[in-house]
Amino acid sequence: MDKRIHLRTDEIPTSWYNVLPDLPVPLPAVLHPGTLEPITPDDLAPIFPMSLIMQEFHPERWVDIPKEILEIYSQWRPTPLVRATRLESALSTKARIYYKDESLSPAGSHKPNTAVAQAYYNKTEGVKRLATETGAGQWGSALAFATGMFDLDCTVYMVKVSYEQKPYRGILIRTWGGEVFPSPSEKTNAGRAALADDPECAGSLGLAISEAVEDALTHDDTKYSLGSVLNHVLLHQTVVGLETKRQLELAGEEADVIVGCVGGGSNFGGLIMPFMPDKFDGKGPRCLAVEPAACPTLTKGPYRYDFGDVAKTTPLLKMYTLGHGFFPAPIHAGGLRYHGDAPLLCHLVSQGFVDAVAYPQSEVFKAAMLFAQTEGFISAPETSHAICGAIKEAQGAPEGKVIVIGYSGHGLLDLAAYDAWISGRIEDYEYPEEKIEEALKDLPEVE
Amino acid sequence: MDKRIHLRTDEIPTSWYNVLPDLPVPLPAVLHPGTLEPITPDDLAPIFPMSLIMQEFHPERWVDIPKEILEIYSQWRPTPLVRATRLESALSTKARIYYKDESLSPAGSHKPNTAVAQAYYNKTEGVKRLATETGAGQWGSALAFATGMFDLDCTVYMVKVSYEQKPYRGILIRTWGGEVFPSPSEKTNAGRAALADDPECAGSLGLAISEAVEDALTHDDTKYSLGSVLNHVLLHQTVVGLETKRQLELAGEEADVIVGCVGGGSNFGGLIMPFMPDKFDGKGPRCLAVEPAACPTLTKGPYRYDFGDVAKTTPLLKMYTLGHGFFPAPIHAGGLRYHGDAPLLCHLVSQGFVDAVAYPQSEVFKAAMLFAQTEGFISAPETSHAICGAIKEAQGAPEGKVIVIGYSGHGLLDLAAYDAWISGRIEDYEYPEEKIEEALKDLPEVE
Repeated sequence: MDKRIHLRTDEIPTSWYNVLPDLPVPLPAVLHPGTLEPITPDDLAPIFPMSLIMQEFHPERWVDIPKEILEIYSQWRPTPLVRATRLESALSTKARIYYKDESLSPAGSHKPNTAVAQAYYNKTEGVKRLATETGAGQWGSALAFATGMFDLDCTVYMVKVSYEQKPYRGILIRTWGGEVFPSPSEKTNAGRAALADDPECAGSLGLAISEAVEDALTHDDTKYSLGSVLNHVLLHQTVVGLETKRQLELAGEEADVIVGCVGGGSNFGGLIMPFMPDKFDGKGPRCLAVEPAACPTLTKGPYRYDFGDVAKTTPLLKMYTLGHGFFPAPIHAGGLRYHGDAPLLCHLVSQGFVDAVAYPQSEVFKAAMLFAQTEGFISAPETSHAICGAIKEAQGAPEGKVIVIGYSGHGLLDLAAYDAWISGRIEDYEYPEEKIEEALKDLPEVE
Repeated sequence: MDKRIHLRTDEIPTSWYNVLPDLPVPLPAVLHPGTLEPITPDDLAPIFPMSLIMQEFHPERWVDIPKEILEIYSQWRPTPLVRATRLESALSTKARIYYKDESLSPAGSHKPNTAVAQAYYNKTEGVKRLATETGAGQWGSALAFATGMFDLDCTVYMVKVSYEQKPYRGILIRTWGGEVFPSPSEKTNAGRAALADDPECAGSLGLAISEAVEDALTHDDTKYSLGSVLNHVLLHQTVVGLETKRQLELAGEEADVIVGCVGGGSNFGGLIMPFMPDKFDGKGPRCLAVEPAACPTLTKGPYRYDFGDVAKTTPLLKMYTLGHGFFPAPIHAGGLRYHGDAPLLCHLVSQGFVDAVAYPQSEVFKAAMLFAQTEGFISAPETSHAICGAIKEAQGAPEGKVIVIGYSGHGLLDLAAYDAWISGRIEDYEYPEEKIEEALKDLPEVE
């Protein structure tokens, strides 16, 4: 049997799968925070190009992938589905474990799947520059790669504390032709105000979002780009799940469990969405979202309308949320430190089609070390959550159980986190449940 | 056409190709530095296991690859041969450019191909621990990965200046279960002597070799391991060339030029060796070694017997050499800073089967940036030399010229070098030709 199941270049999916028309219960609308009415495409036009906005509301099951995007995808796609035989042996499990390897993209994660699509659609609508925020830099570097491929300019506002502590992702952004500023920056009113308030301000993702949105709003040739949460982002990520489905068929396997990590939900959402039609028919694999115990949105958050950002500038999204004011503990999986989740994923959880579980980071690092010492590869701290979930699923599994891991990214630029683990400097954090009422108290009551 | 030419797991070569019996002129012997007589297997037994020593002198054309090694190879092999279509477009070349992607191994380079084999053979002979040296850490991390796969212990002496400046490769070593000491260390007489002489000593590769060899000589359960130069290392690397040959056949292509970077010669040697039988018949591709202008062994060095290390502890090897006392300028391609080259590769150069060219690192970084901005991937500074050579070959090429690049490793742990380039802090270095006579003056005259 092949250790790695490869597809040919011409087997890259030529359409993305859009789950919206297949949902048994429609997705709750995104609401305008002033009127509490559903937002319209025009509300979003100042910051996104119309082709991406229309994908938020797309009524058809399939969306053709333009050939210009397929050409860039082919630089690393299709990605292999790999059998983790040495991990299986180490666990003495009767399960068969596979991982879908999205770490092979130039930026080292699944993020370019949507970054390339977003760069392309902006380009076709005459946009010259994209502005975005990034925390640890995974999304910012993916967008810089993508804009570089389409000769667009790219401005990344990177949370200052990460900009200083993790210089490598900033270098990646510049290597691909992007510019990167520590946020708060002197480039925007939001940044200047924060610096006036506190010149030493370390920044936050919420503030960086405000800077990027302001940049887009104040420049005619510039739009804003978001790396997770929205429907069109999850749509683009369905190439991952579509390939996985085909690869499982080729291997003669049927997945019993699909495990992925969830921060905003784009990697896991893209992986599981193509399996949803089966789920809606009462079949299909268990879909298991793994989140950090320090930021347990799906497992501990109420399902409420909330803002997407700290500053309450976004529309209201129905999500499992810990409150837009919740500031998660400084775990190493920076990409999983978001107070909410993609509304589409939350909807599927609320309908019982997706399960969720949370693990403390010490469990997660143990899993990552076992993976490194058996399969050889260094997983991103985010991805290590999925590995941890898969290991728990494999322990005591019945003969022939098939487990699929969403291997969303490598950890080669996160080795400082491994160093912390090896040196005994990894702390676990309790989620402060008593704070949630306060964090949610200024939200409108909407049904 | 497929952008990436994949082979199945069962197409990993099951034998390594040994060029020794096919050489039109036999390889000059390795000499004992005292007697100036050819060394015998027994001379090497204190530091290497006998199975590897016998591979140095192997009389047959093929060496079976044990299934235990094939199993570990399958974690990342076969590696794809990738068409660099976007690089071709950017160059407006009529050539077709392919790259053989060895960056996909767990350690990020071709090095595990021999590390895994060496760990296996040592294991079968009852060795419990391997000791080695490493400069920037590519080889040390590859050996730590390999020993981890076979439950061997691993001790790496890492040149102190790199240990301090490049912590990530040290973390990799520890993640895979190895131990790593800055060299000079307190663990050996050689290290203690150097520290007594100068407590601030920054170390050198030559000194780290002395520490690793002493460690092996003074511990019964420990052997020494070398990542390049020797025949058995190049033998193990022939999986790269054998796969490439098969992939070119599948693509219906015949290589006109194969380009690789050369430090010790293992990556390039492994890539070209399987093409040598054709070369010996007056056919086959041009084989082009690319080296740094700051360390131009093949292009500027005389073909002489020299020591492999600064301290003159090794046997005498016939090589193009800049002298065992030559200390190359601090270019970013640390893996290419060796005063000699694999005797096997030097022999092929001397016989006219391999060509060589040298480029300054500014040219090399320009090439790496073009590759990153077209194909998307970040190449190691060493690998960037091969890309540079390929670009020169592509410029003005006739219709349909086929160029194959040995893409030996990624540069994700070398981003500081990219930062230096982007920030205008890359210097070129002149090779000090006037120093070569002095560097070679204490060598025995041997024919």
